[in-house]
Amino acid sequence: MGQSPDSGQKQTPIDALNNALDAGTLAHVRRMLNSLPAAEVADLLESSPPDKRKVLWQLIELENEGEILHEVNADISGEILRSMDTEELLAVTEGLETDDLVDIVQQLPEQLSNELLQSMDAQDRQRVELVLPFAEDTAGGLMNTDTITVRPSHTMELVLRYLRRHEEIPRFTDTLIVVNRKDEFLGLLPLRRVLVSDPGMTVRELMQTGIEAIPADMPDSTVASLFERHDWVSAPVVETNSNKLLGRITIDDVVDVIIEDADHSLMSMAGLGDDAETFSRVIHAAPRRALWLGANLITAFIAAAAINLYQETIQQIVALAILMPIVASMGGVAGSQTLTIMIRGMALDQINRSNTRWLLNRELIVAALNGMLWALVVAAVATLWFGDQRIGIVIALAMFINLVTAALAGVLLPLLLKALKIDPALAGSVILTTVTDVVGFVSFLGLATAFYM
Amino acid sequence: MGQSPDSGQKQTPIDALNNALDAGTLAHVRRMLNSLPAAEVADLLESSPPDKRKVLWQLIELENEGEILHEVNADISGEILRSMDTEELLAVTEGLETDDLVDIVQQLPEQLSNELLQSMDAQDRQRVELVLPFAEDTAGGLMNTDTITVRPSHTMELVLRYLRRHEEIPRFTDTLIVVNRKDEFLGLLPLRRVLVSDPGMTVRELMQTGIEAIPADMPDSTVASLFERHDWVSAPVVETNSNKLLGRITIDDVVDVIIEDADHSLMSMAGLGDDAETFSRVIHAAPRRALWLGANLITAFIAAAAINLYQETIQQIVALAILMPIVASMGGVAGSQTLTIMIRGMALDQINRSNTRWLLNRELIVAALNGMLWALVVAAVATLWFGDQRIGIVIALAMFINLVTAALAGVLLPLLLKALKIDPALAGSVILTTVTDVVGFVSFLGLATAFYM
Repeated sequence: MGQSPDSGQKQTPIDALNNALDAGTLAHVRRMLNSLPAAEVADLLESSPPDKRKVLWQLIELENEGEILHEVNADISGEILRSMDTEELLAVTEGLETDDLVDIVQQLPEQLSNELLQSMDAQDRQRVELVLPFAEDTAGGLMNTDTITVRPSHTMELVLRYLRRHEEIPRFTDTLIVVNRKDEFLGLLPLRRVLVSDPGMTVRELMQTGIEAIPADMPDSTVASLFERHDWVSAPVVETNSNKLLGRITIDDVVDVIIEDADHSLMSMAGLGDDAETFSRVIHAAPRRALWLGANLITAFIAAAAINLYQETIQQIVALAILMPIVASMGGVAGSQTLTIMIRGMALDQINRSNTRWLLNRELIVAALNGMLWALVVAAVATLWFGDQRIGIVIALAMFINLVTAALAGVLLPLLLKALKIDPALAGSVILTTVTDVVGFVSFLGLATAFYM
Repeated sequence: MGQSPDSGQKQTPIDALNNALDAGTLAHVRRMLNSLPAAEVADLLESSPPDKRKVLWQLIELENEGEILHEVNADISGEILRSMDTEELLAVTEGLETDDLVDIVQQLPEQLSNELLQSMDAQDRQRVELVLPFAEDTAGGLMNTDTITVRPSHTMELVLRYLRRHEEIPRFTDTLIVVNRKDEFLGLLPLRRVLVSDPGMTVRELMQTGIEAIPADMPDSTVASLFERHDWVSAPVVETNSNKLLGRITIDDVVDVIIEDADHSLMSMAGLGDDAETFSRVIHAAPRRALWLGANLITAFIAAAAINLYQETIQQIVALAILMPIVASMGGVAGSQTLTIMIRGMALDQINRSNTRWLLNRELIVAALNGMLWALVVAAVATLWFGDQRIGIVIALAMFINLVTAALAGVLLPLLLKALKIDPALAGSVILTTVTDVVGFVSFLGLATAFYM
């Protein structure tokens, strides 16, 4: 049970690798890197600042590069791919699954992707050209062409013999796909059913029918929710207007879609690009965020202009300047809660015509209740602080108004944006802040003007 | 191609059901409900306000209830379960998979769960009692006991005969689990390898070794990242300190974990509970949010107290009151961008000792660049607006200071909170807002006091 530093049992492979990197023992790092699963190396690349990433990449053997490229996010793989020439690309893409291959081809500049396609062998090129027309975020873009198909008339004995002729059955093959002579999808035959059935039974007797195959143009997030609902491991993809089998989608790729979709709301609500990777360089990070700060600056100036209307009131009662950010801030927080619930509900496809009114009611009631509660607290504190009951009344009313407005805007704004085909996760929070700031300042300072002036 | 309203081809089953519900044709709704997959009914329940949900639940047949209960989120299933008596519970839980059964038992009040356990048949009780000790968010809590095991000495012929004796092979069985006489885990035998191998070969010759089984106490999010990295469909679970096989985890349950984890950051950052369902009742939604608003109110009063220090300055130059929210707001937005990146990076396990310094540097540089850019713009606008160059200089300096502070706090705060075992997604944004508000107001008003007074 010696505790040599190399065999530390509690270290994860990634920790060990980081330590070896820090220690500068590159030969050691190379050995470790090339023995890890592709996804783990991809994690390591994604957790590394760009310069360290370059060093790591050079230590990875050519035969492992393709699979790793598929696992890292698009920002990073794009950067790596653009630094390769055709020969390297050809070496990297050899033996990849179709969808991985297509992902890579799609990320290349046109000239390079044409060169790459021309240098592939005919079979690979055919596979890629079949999938290439489909957008990356559709079922077609997700699919592989490694299907195993059988005919309804085959017996189990024949099916088993046919399977045995394969050198390897592709991963995630939980079903055989049943097609007719014209390659049209008919149904699925689960492997686990093949294994327990009488050798004389036919595919027709055992196959599951009534399953709809996925049309190639279905958006990937819809594919993901189908997989989730039906607990699929793989599913067949057909041509959109015929029923001709094109390929299949497997759960590993669907999990990636699920993770990306979930990430989308979080990142968008902070104005960060979807594919903004954690370790993007300053030159990528700064402009994206500058844009968002600029949008917020416009918001802030609109709020300032609202305050400007009440210059005289503020000049006479400076307590208003001290308290006014409280009203705006509480409205902003309440609004962002409602907005987050709406955006999550919309992402989960839970919100539709029939329940919007219920949601709006619920949000308004919650806002009214919490508005009353905190208005009372704020009124008490403000009255005690400035020894003036009127200021307590004014801030309580303003806060109540702003919280209810925040709920109203938080429900309706994302629905409106969606109807206008604008991403609510991206645009929602900036616009909502404008609303709650302006309503907060105007109601507070306006009421104060009415009370005092 | 008639377009009868019932067979509208573009309607999803859920739309159709909603329409039927609105039309009040309950018999029709009942038929549809009981022919949909459990996950789809669960979606429908989750997309329904509580009262409609109750109506729907009563239309679901007893035999379908168990599976549906497992698919809805814990808030909803808890509510439904607590309204049942032992007899109903027993009927609902019959034939469920072990992990689903255990989930249900765990959600019941102790008395009811004891009654339920006592009324189960001995075999079910044994299965449940094996899994029950493990927390819901560990590998043990995720696992099922429906493993198919083989011995190293078996030949493929024997294995195939053994499989054929099963009436049904459980879903997600992509591998057989190889164990020794003492039920200790030895390796995995992929079904797809069984199918293509010579009948005379033994399990020992064909099995994959060198795979580590999952210890029962591993946290579920670690399990999820293992599945993601290795593209597993199922994986064996063993006793933590021995290697004794306990069960297996399947990808369908892992996908649920992935979705929950992804949801966590988004919901927590808005101060919404993890399991806050979209259609929770006012009585559940209001108190949770009240708490968060209360925390924010404290923040807002701290900011107000900061402004209060500069009463005299504001009284003399009212422009300061008009402009000060701009400085605070820009700091808040910049800070929340940095915080979101940190929280996502931490959730993805990307952030560690070796790259924190790089991240901090990057954030500071981005903040400094964007700080300079927008400081100049703000300075120009403020100077023109109030015809006073000094106010432009003051706001530019204050904004620069606040953006850089926001970056510093945005990186360090979540790390600090994590070290203190406080969830950064939950507490981070409130504390960060306090920092950017206070620094924003104090730097702006403080500099103004120095310049003007």
